[in-house]
Amino acid sequence: MKVGVIGSTGYAGQQLTSLLYHHPEVEIEFLSSYTYEGEKFSDVYGMFHDILNQKCIGLEEAIKKVETIDLLFIALPHGKSLEIIERIKSANVKIIDFGADFRMNDKETIKEWYGLDHKDEKLLSEAVYGLPELNRNKIKTARLVANPGCYPTASLLGLLPLIGKEYVDTSSIVIDAKSGVTGAGRKTTLALSYCEANENFKAYAIGSHRHTPEIEEVLSNQANQKIVLSFTPHLVPMQRGILSTIYIKLKGNLSENEIAEIYNDYYKNDYFVRMRDTLPETKLVSRTNYCDLLVHLDKRTNRLVIISAIDNLVKGSAGQAIQNMNLMMGYPETLGLKGAYYYL
Amino acid sequence: MKVGVIGSTGYAGQQLTSLLYHHPEVEIEFLSSYTYEGEKFSDVYGMFHDILNQKCIGLEEAIKKVETIDLLFIALPHGKSLEIIERIKSANVKIIDFGADFRMNDKETIKEWYGLDHKDEKLLSEAVYGLPELNRNKIKTARLVANPGCYPTASLLGLLPLIGKEYVDTSSIVIDAKSGVTGAGRKTTLALSYCEANENFKAYAIGSHRHTPEIEEVLSNQANQKIVLSFTPHLVPMQRGILSTIYIKLKGNLSENEIAEIYNDYYKNDYFVRMRDTLPETKLVSRTNYCDLLVHLDKRTNRLVIISAIDNLVKGSAGQAIQNMNLMMGYPETLGLKGAYYYL
Amino acid sequence: MKVGVIGSTGYAGQQLTSLLYHHPEVEIEFLSSYTYEGEKFSDVYGMFHDILNQKCIGLEEAIKKVETIDLLFIALPHGKSLEIIERIKSANVKIIDFGADFRMNDKETIKEWYGLDHKDEKLLSEAVYGLPELNRNKIKTARLVANPGCYPTASLLGLLPLIGKEYVDTSSIVIDAKSGVTGAGRKTTLALSYCEANENFKAYAIGSHRHTPEIEEVLSNQANQKIVLSFTPHLVPMQRGILSTIYIKLKGNLSENEIAEIYNDYYKNDYFVRMRDTLPETKLVSRTNYCDLLVHLDKRTNRLVIISAIDNLVKGSAGQAIQNMNLMMGYPETLGLKGAYYYL
Amino acid sequence: MKVGVIGSTGYAGQQLTSLLYHHPEVEIEFLSSYTYEGEKFSDVYGMFHDILNQKCIGLEEAIKKVETIDLLFIALPHGKSLEIIERIKSANVKIIDFGADFRMNDKETIKEWYGLDHKDEKLLSEAVYGLPELNRNKIKTARLVANPGCYPTASLLGLLPLIGKEYVDTSSIVIDAKSGVTGAGRKTTLALSYCEANENFKAYAIGSHRHTPEIEEVLSNQANQKIVLSFTPHLVPMQRGILSTIYIKLKGNLSENEIAEIYNDYYKNDYFVRMRDTLPETKLVSRTNYCDLLVHLDKRTNRLVIISAIDNLVKGSAGQAIQNMNLMMGYPETLGLKGAYYYL
Repeated sequence: MKVGVIGSTGYAGQQLTSLLYHHPEVEIEFLSSYTYEGEKFSDVYGMFHDILNQKCIGLEEAIKKVETIDLLFIALPHGKSLEIIERIKSANVKIIDFGADFRMNDKETIKEWYGLDHKDEKLLSEAVYGLPELNRNKIKTARLVANPGCYPTASLLGLLPLIGKEYVDTSSIVIDAKSGVTGAGRKTTLALSYCEANENFKAYAIGSHRHTPEIEEVLSNQANQKIVLSFTPHLVPMQRGILSTIYIKLKGNLSENEIAEIYNDYYKNDYFVRMRDTLPETKLVSRTNYCDLLVHLDKRTNRLVIISAIDNLVKGSAGQAIQNMNLMMGYPETLGLKGAYYYL
Repeated sequence: MKVGVIGSTGYAGQQLTSLLYHHPEVEIEFLSSYTYEGEKFSDVYGMFHDILNQKCIGLEEAIKKVETIDLLFIALPHGKSLEIIERIKSANVKIIDFGADFRMNDKETIKEWYGLDHKDEKLLSEAVYGLPELNRNKIKTARLVANPGCYPTASLLGLLPLIGKEYVDTSSIVIDAKSGVTGAGRKTTLALSYCEANENFKAYAIGSHRHTPEIEEVLSNQANQKIVLSFTPHLVPMQRGILSTIYIKLKGNLSENEIAEIYNDYYKNDYFVRMRDTLPETKLVSRTNYCDLLVHLDKRTNRLVIISAIDNLVKGSAGQAIQNMNLMMGYPETLGLKGAYYYL
Repeated sequence: MKVGVIGSTGYAGQQLTSLLYHHPEVEIEFLSSYTYEGEKFSDVYGMFHDILNQKCIGLEEAIKKVETIDLLFIALPHGKSLEIIERIKSANVKIIDFGADFRMNDKETIKEWYGLDHKDEKLLSEAVYGLPELNRNKIKTARLVANPGCYPTASLLGLLPLIGKEYVDTSSIVIDAKSGVTGAGRKTTLALSYCEANENFKAYAIGSHRHTPEIEEVLSNQANQKIVLSFTPHLVPMQRGILSTIYIKLKGNLSENEIAEIYNDYYKNDYFVRMRDTLPETKLVSRTNYCDLLVHLDKRTNRLVIISAIDNLVKGSAGQAIQNMNLMMGYPETLGLKGAYYYL
Repeated sequence: MKVGVIGSTGYAGQQLTSLLYHHPEVEIEFLSSYTYEGEKFSDVYGMFHDILNQKCIGLEEAIKKVETIDLLFIALPHGKSLEIIERIKSANVKIIDFGADFRMNDKETIKEWYGLDHKDEKLLSEAVYGLPELNRNKIKTARLVANPGCYPTASLLGLLPLIGKEYVDTSSIVIDAKSGVTGAGRKTTLALSYCEANENFKAYAIGSHRHTPEIEEVLSNQANQKIVLSFTPHLVPMQRGILSTIYIKLKGNLSENEIAEIYNDYYKNDYFVRMRDTLPETKLVSRTNYCDLLVHLDKRTNRLVIISAIDNLVKGSAGQAIQNMNLMMGYPETLGLKGAYYYL
């Protein structure tokens, strides 16, 4: 199959590109970049010298080429893909979009949190939220898949098995999430410079992070009730990884075994979700497509503490996109994503 | 004044020792060490070459010398100071203990969480919990001060202004705490080795960390009701710093201004607590005795999100001990602790 | 083909194991471990949960199984493989040894620097030094390959094209080498603990590192003269990577172009050596089998400054072992090693 | 005494400012900043909230105020101070300049390496190179002191005792230097962003770094012969610290004792130079004004390997400036600089 990548030189884009390079069924037809148009991909990322020497093309050239490929990845900052996708919607090409533009169904929420106007509601409603563990069958036949955000992936995989159950207090959900610095993208802001971010830990965007409504919409749809929750992201001085610590009150009495059974059952067919009985760590999923989960019942408070760990650039982004591509193209879901290469 | 330090070669002990060295009123009479008895302090910590060349003495020798000093610091792992303090309780020496042995009033709780038996209840009841912002006056006249834990310091300073107020839901408290690696002490376990701890983020001791009852007891005493809460510590790949993100539901409607007023008023005489209107970061309090606080009202959930940041080795340990010493000796509370030296 | 790994749970061993797991021609027959005998590999390295769940066997059991495999990897600390290999030398199995025991030809040098006694000189002389760029053809037919040290790999690849040329002053060679912390192995010493190694840079083993005679012997053999050089290793607060800065005086006048030609020609058939015209960085070869080289002529001093960068766990160890295995088994040299997966 | 700081908000400037704040004899009359004119210093560096709340003034206002202070610090990038100092040269104010503009005597060298034109040669010749261990007496009476570069400080302190001795081969000097990231200043370039600089090690500016002629001029003046050497700087993923590994060939036979004696004698009156018999580490001088030195004789090559470690922001910059200020003002040289506060 032939693919193209718009936005190949951001951190998510380059991770996607290197996974595509190694994928046994994929041929990369073009790489596109705003910032580095005309430069070799291997000059932007010197690691890929002698490996990926093709030149990055510009957006317009990429759009012209969409008919020559089977699947287009768009890995741009939020708000950039809407216009592009509207321009190519009649082309015969599948699309996986990394942005938030098509992740939510509700026009008003998208408008409120992202300032984006969806004019073509049919197009919006056609988009499938690309979390395979939730929407596997819809993804298989989708033409347009909205790849989930990194925080929502970790949060939703931690919460989905419980949502809709009468014994959880959905008003009590607190998601305390921590991410490595790649989550902020390849930027040159002072706060992301080495000396400022290193040896530092902080929260940001308290009560206002735009992944909040994404998480809430998916959960609300599953629960058939409006769910509002607290979500606090933090910045960890490391490159990769998200660990979410999720708190939720139980209404009745459940044992740890009952809870374990719920999760094991929910994920029994999901290769990339690993139920653990030891504490998840970001390092244990680093550079893999796994989500490691632990559910702890704190009997003193009758609260569940759920730990969910992923690699934000793999399961939280490029790896999940490959997983979605495999589903859309009829390949084995794990193709090019199995196992783990590098612990350190 | 003359001081001695038992346990001078752990991370807290060496931080204390270097702060004592620079304190204008202090003369260090002896440094004691289990592991490095007979070695020069400057051979254990090469940084102090030509500065602190005195030899570390053993415990028995230290105990013999307690009558020659005004104040003894004990910076040993939990469970080690109880016996020592019982042995020297009739000596004419003030004591600041870094361990948990005397931090709680309730014998049973100490027994349950630490396995320690307090035989001398009078001694236990005499101990003052050394959080100056809470117990300033008691500390001034105390003979035995139990220096608070690092996590409790950050947590309590974040919560104390609210506790006892009828408009907070005390059953809803969640403390999600993150600490740099020095919090674990100077150890050689595999999990604390560079390659394992670096580029990694994880939770530990979920629902079972021994700082939990310490926080609960202080809060319960203030609230005149039993408070049970969720406390989850995490390990951050950095050396210093604790940042606690604290969640608490409001029962009624309060404005951000009203809340700010409560905190400003509570800490109006506390030099080392800084109410911030920007987000606290561990780097902004690193190597200082400050606690930076931000209180955010999340209107969507009517939950307060409180961010509290300290340096675990200073305000969370050695600096707070100096602050307590200053109070006990009648010096200005900030002596030897003012300001900030090193941002990076 | 079937392989076994003795010493699978060190850092080099686990990197090897994960590369073997993904190699298209390899079946892992057994994993052996001193420290973790009887434990699942995936319990030692939680990252491999659900991936490599097989139990680690002990050494004696491994030795019994060598006849059932085609190739044995031994990834043990120096001095441990000599005895093992002498015990199994008559077995019909190829061997790749990660230790230094068989890297040098000269019995006396091995005795002097490692304290090892080689009794079977025929066995020693049979061992091939496994640097494919130097000994490709010998490796193809070897039964016993001594995988080079990480520092020697980076150093030799930087120097080999020049050695034996009359215009280089071989008495002037200085190798200033810097390595990430994985180079020290999976250890629990205080100096390798996070808080000691982080935010620190230091030299170690000045003038006495045991990779020195390994480098000297290979160079001396190529030059047909005794070469003695200065080698200083340093510890960098990062996980992976070696960067060697090599200084060598020129006797006559050479242009940068002439030098570039010498290197380009020497490595024209070596997929894994990349001649660069931008400065090598450890990150650009991280988790790859590449060696990036830059040769700079400093006209002010008529000295060459050669920068050589590798990943110590891949080209400096496990990747090079796979490369050797491919050669020994007649597979394409790059099988299972091509390209680059993870920039970050 | 009253001081002003031009360039207070760079990394060197803020380190200087915090050291001045704590200095017992200093009152900070003004802080000036290009980028943050009109902002509170404590808003630029949140760490100094409630400590250094004064507003940064602009350059013109600072220049107007120079007559109201005793000493002016200029901590600007190279090439910025020349014009400022020429404008205020008739003012009655002592000056310590952090830039390179006045570090060298030779107009042509400054022109060649920095592109700067010194029109007032008398002013240039009046400037004293502010390395107290070399020029203590000249500094005491100087009006204009050029604070040395960070790399030159570490390099010169390592080499000065040997220079001019007939038994060293001055053509053989190689300085392989490694610096933490603060050495590059507070910048937002991509290469200095967290994800690029972290877990990476690289050389830069090979054969062309502008500290090279600074080192060479001082050594040449001492040796009474033209010295040309190789200097290679490297970037270490840590915040602070420089470690230089210096190689120099001996012509005759010296013992380690003879060499130790030369160094001990040379530095016998220098509080801030510590001759060590264990290997220097950047962490052991971090946030101190010390330079730790070890001299190793490699008998195999008859080469000296000298390790020199400093904190680039203290002895390599702001601390050395305070040391110079103390000398210029007649205070004890160590005032405000003694000891060590923070190992971690």
